[in-house]
Amino acid sequence: LIAEGRALRPNDFVGEPEPAVPHSIESCPFCRGNEHATPHELALVNDDQGNWLVRVVPNKYPAVDLASGGREPPAGLAACASDARDLRPPLACEPARGVHEVIIESPRHVRDWTELSSEELATVLRVFRDRIEHAYKAHQMRSALIFKNVGQAAGASLEHVHTQLMALPCVPEVLMREVQIAADHQERTGKCLMCELISDELRQGTRLIAENERFAAIAAYAGRQPYEIWVVPKQHASSFTQLGEEESQRLAAILGETLSLLHSVLAPLASAGDLRPPLAYNVVLHTAPVGEARFAAFHWHWELIPRTTSLAGFEWGTGMFINPVSPERAAIRLRALKSGEKLPIQ
Amino acid sequence: LIAEGRALRPNDFVGEPEPAVPHSIESCPFCRGNEHATPHELALVNDDQGNWLVRVVPNKYPAVDLASGGREPPAGLAACASDARDLRPPLACEPARGVHEVIIESPRHVRDWTELSSEELATVLRVFRDRIEHAYKAHQMRSALIFKNVGQAAGASLEHVHTQLMALPCVPEVLMREVQIAADHQERTGKCLMCELISDELRQGTRLIAENERFAAIAAYAGRQPYEIWVVPKQHASSFTQLGEEESQRLAAILGETLSLLHSVLAPLASAGDLRPPLAYNVVLHTAPVGEARFAAFHWHWELIPRTTSLAGFEWGTGMFINPVSPERAAIRLRALKSGEKLPIQ
Repeated sequence: LIAEGRALRPNDFVGEPEPAVPHSIESCPFCRGNEHATPHELALVNDDQGNWLVRVVPNKYPAVDLASGGREPPAGLAACASDARDLRPPLACEPARGVHEVIIESPRHVRDWTELSSEELATVLRVFRDRIEHAYKAHQMRSALIFKNVGQAAGASLEHVHTQLMALPCVPEVLMREVQIAADHQERTGKCLMCELISDELRQGTRLIAENERFAAIAAYAGRQPYEIWVVPKQHASSFTQLGEEESQRLAAILGETLSLLHSVLAPLASAGDLRPPLAYNVVLHTAPVGEARFAAFHWHWELIPRTTSLAGFEWGTGMFINPVSPERAAIRLRALKSGEKLPIQ
Repeated sequence: LIAEGRALRPNDFVGEPEPAVPHSIESCPFCRGNEHATPHELALVNDDQGNWLVRVVPNKYPAVDLASGGREPPAGLAACASDARDLRPPLACEPARGVHEVIIESPRHVRDWTELSSEELATVLRVFRDRIEHAYKAHQMRSALIFKNVGQAAGASLEHVHTQLMALPCVPEVLMREVQIAADHQERTGKCLMCELISDELRQGTRLIAENERFAAIAAYAGRQPYEIWVVPKQHASSFTQLGEEESQRLAAILGETLSLLHSVLAPLASAGDLRPPLAYNVVLHTAPVGEARFAAFHWHWELIPRTTSLAGFEWGTGMFINPVSPERAAIRLRALKSGEKLPIQ
């Protein structure tokens, strides 16, 4: 996605060091009282007094938008307008269509989901569900990605708790491959691959970190980063748009619990004081695209990816990842923290 | 690659801030005089007086090794030895076999290729060629990756100029896809895709940054990061092991020139003084694997990837990248610097 409008984001401009994230409510565009600093909201959840609890706004610096012919280049950037792109085969290029929204998850200036109540997080999860559904229905998008960047090393430019929705008229590569593998497995065995995996993980327990009636959190068998965790529904469901009320509460509980464990294990050196541990991580929802029957073989899940190691040339050149902490060891350490045991080694 | 031995690298240990890179020769394991700090060398290039110019050593903390059954877990880490991994289908796991070497590119404590002479860099490039050939012939590896991490944001843990070789008994995903696309195009059209692309780029010039008799440097048409540059041989060659003497000199010249331009354009804000601009980047060689006739359709090239934006949840979830600087604009700015013009805008 060539998205020159994003170069206008002061935090994102190449070559400049990222400024410190704002700590004061006055300068934060996502805090209550500063609603004028963001575009007009697309959706709101209010409390009984009419104060907003969750606010959905268009991304002010979108990587994709709904203009079918691409949008005007920002003032001063006309020299490389998208119509100047060379399109002779084998080169190809098309307007970057899609939906790019920001979900502001609390009016309070807090930094991540561990600072929301379980009820607040459940509300946020239902907003995700509804915005995905809206992108599919109102804008004919085929896939939707919910992703959260916490910490500068994970790509965040603002500290205030928020998540992004990107919905696209296509199915991106990573999701399409997962869907294809799920569909192939279903066709070959009649079963859901993720249902089999999660049932094995629950029976064996080696990589199990937390579970409740509805969900399991496991250290990913082939985790790309140390302490990569997947949170998976125990019962088959292809799309996050199917999330029920009670499920949203159970999911909020296990996501909050798992993130708290990650904070504890990964930030033992954080200085005491007001600052939270400087854990950087991404959280990404994988949910079925729409439009084909075989997509029902997919099994939605969340991926929690702590960003403790830098991606290097090896990863760029191979698509493989080097993980210095086995998922089995990660699970041992996370479970030990949960039960208040002392860490087994180191 | 689950590589627990790498957790012993002090710089790489999760949760701990990376220590500052050493600036003094005394503490640098790659400087002349400190050869005892690295494993015994696998290869050397000496000057006329018998002093080494380039030194190849095994990676002290390898992600892969040649032990066919996997290696012993480091002391104290026995609880999660690799034989404890669950292997029931659909789970799968195998020993991480391969070659992992470090090429120390100068006895002097310099930081990147722009501080080597063109002749020194040409020698280094021929060492890469020979070590790849060695990994194929002596260890029956099928693919080889040469990658360079400069700066902590690009995954470097040591500052002294060095590059890594990783050779594998398999063909990694990224390379296999490129090879497959090249082979398909060759079969369909009888032509090399990269030869067609580079010939178009030379004729049109929009994304051309530098060229000489043998090579062209272009801003990648679908660059994943701002200022991503590919350096490509003008004549078809599938494998870097075919690199000739004169070619190595021409390649050194264009790589040095291109990196100097990147330094200039990306670090305008670097403080004056002894420190070089804090540009972080990866350089990755893409060269044909061995073992199948269709691999000859591949066209080797180098990818230079400045690391100016953080990868975020969107990239993890989609395999797509958001690039806020179009390659056409990147090329305009880099060419302007080369000719001493003032930058066109901003």
